[in-house]
Amino acid sequence: MYVVPEKEIAGLMTPDAAFEAIEAVFASMARRKAYNFPVVREAIGYEDALYGFKGGFDAAGLSLGLKAGGYWPNNQKHNLINHQSTVFLFDPDTGRVSAAVGGNLLTALRTAAASAVSIKYLAPKGAKVLGMIGAGHQSAFQMRAAARVHNFEKVIGWNPHPEMLTRLADTAAELGLPFEAVELDRLGSEADVIISITSAFSPLLMDSHVKGPTHIAAMGTDTKGKQELDAALVARARVFTDEVAQSISIGEAQHAIAQGLIAEEAINELGAVVTGDHEGRGDAEVTIFDGTGVGLQDLAVAHKSVEIAKQKGVALTVEI
Amino acid sequence: MYVVPEKEIAGLMTPDAAFEAIEAVFASMARRKAYNFPVVREAIGYEDALYGFKGGFDAAGLSLGLKAGGYWPNNQKHNLINHQSTVFLFDPDTGRVSAAVGGNLLTALRTAAASAVSIKYLAPKGAKVLGMIGAGHQSAFQMRAAARVHNFEKVIGWNPHPEMLTRLADTAAELGLPFEAVELDRLGSEADVIISITSAFSPLLMDSHVKGPTHIAAMGTDTKGKQELDAALVARARVFTDEVAQSISIGEAQHAIAQGLIAEEAINELGAVVTGDHEGRGDAEVTIFDGTGVGLQDLAVAHKSVEIAKQKGVALTVEI
Repeated sequence: MYVVPEKEIAGLMTPDAAFEAIEAVFASMARRKAYNFPVVREAIGYEDALYGFKGGFDAAGLSLGLKAGGYWPNNQKHNLINHQSTVFLFDPDTGRVSAAVGGNLLTALRTAAASAVSIKYLAPKGAKVLGMIGAGHQSAFQMRAAARVHNFEKVIGWNPHPEMLTRLADTAAELGLPFEAVELDRLGSEADVIISITSAFSPLLMDSHVKGPTHIAAMGTDTKGKQELDAALVARARVFTDEVAQSISIGEAQHAIAQGLIAEEAINELGAVVTGDHEGRGDAEVTIFDGTGVGLQDLAVAHKSVEIAKQKGVALTVEI
Repeated sequence: MYVVPEKEIAGLMTPDAAFEAIEAVFASMARRKAYNFPVVREAIGYEDALYGFKGGFDAAGLSLGLKAGGYWPNNQKHNLINHQSTVFLFDPDTGRVSAAVGGNLLTALRTAAASAVSIKYLAPKGAKVLGMIGAGHQSAFQMRAAARVHNFEKVIGWNPHPEMLTRLADTAAELGLPFEAVELDRLGSEADVIISITSAFSPLLMDSHVKGPTHIAAMGTDTKGKQELDAALVARARVFTDEVAQSISIGEAQHAIAQGLIAEEAINELGAVVTGDHEGRGDAEVTIFDGTGVGLQDLAVAHKSVEIAKQKGVALTVEI
């Protein structure tokens, strides 16, 4: 079994490698070569933790396995981050475990890569302004990944706690881009591409805020009840997602679906745009990528990490 | 992360240690201190493999994690056994992975320990004859574990392929017990304790075969459609199980339930006998333990293996 520890990931896994892995696995999913298993997610009644497994199999990339871990809200007392996960890969030829890979940074990278894939394929032509909704830990990853796939000229941002906007300003500066803090109505009307990455439980970006050709990567909603976008905005947009089943149940589309504003059939797979089987933006004014997060993304980046670690000679091997 | 490789398990994990671990986790389950998560089991459409995860959390034993792996029917070409699994334990205080343990021998030991726990608590007084139905790889583990919890005087056995009965004869000889091959009607009438461990899809042991006080550990049925015992025999017996939800859906009781012969409420948890909350055999003539196999058993023996490996100084540690 190869072991790639958490602390090695930063030196192995570039945003570009993550992008390639996620783009490829979305294509595999659209070609029905890869599928996700049912998700196990349990409130274990201990330390207020949520724990579970996201597994899948990609017969094209030959990734089999799962990400296991969860959310431990009291981890600060252990000097650890609250999200903890590990990815385990299995050999699809034999069923034997082949690798254990630290999953914390990988989760951030694969989530950022997913919105970047959507921006590559769905951003309006000539998009110049990137709007960021949310300034938490993950927002910097999203911005960096977006900047790699598109030449933005400016970043504008909003966060429920304005004192956190320094993260967006700092990240934009790191990318050589000017940053301006704005209200949501200005963000919606001025941004050509918007990434929302919050834990909101009620809509932040309203339909009336959004003007002109816009692509929105809605990355925060991954649970029943969460919501970042006005359901009317979702209903007006052409909607893409990583996995339709999750989009309608735990993703951003859950609300427009529940209110009868859109039908499941109206939701498209981003992977089909990657493979060329879907035209993508077409004549739509607003496109939305409803990024819910699937186990196959975790497997894809973990698989890539192990490959790179082997090439660089830094993969530990341990008998199991 | 501790790593306990498959090849070390035989030197670490005694049947007695497995017995203690399984007895304790059944008690935790009955006390509602431990529960199993939904099982994921997928035919992945590659190498005819079945792959999945069985997870759980024992708040008393502080075991959290899963067994991952499955059944690869073509593994002979790789010189590997068809069942391949690995157990991953997590620290319930932080969500970080704490151990990876080879799960193949552990699975055999925990399955044998489960029937042994049932025999300790449910065998008729003065039981002398052990009847074995099935002579595959697992049958030897079951017989050895049974002989550790009860002083049998004789073993009798039956197998659909009589040429395989040498395994039962050899294992009985190893235990210092005489062995006789018999037909199922004699087995049912002469054995005081019966262990069935086959992959049958239709009943082998009929109600009419079984005479007098008898305990039957039905260990083979873990899938919809499998069946070792006549549904009428299940209906006549006092039925115990590891987990009621599995017993009625994928265990031996599925058929008696489907035919309306018994109600779910009639099925008892073996753990409640361990804790003293259920009288056990009482005045029942026939008792059945419907052993379906739960993830908590895997976690319990893996946890014990890691403890023993740490005590003996043979646990590998690897950073993750």
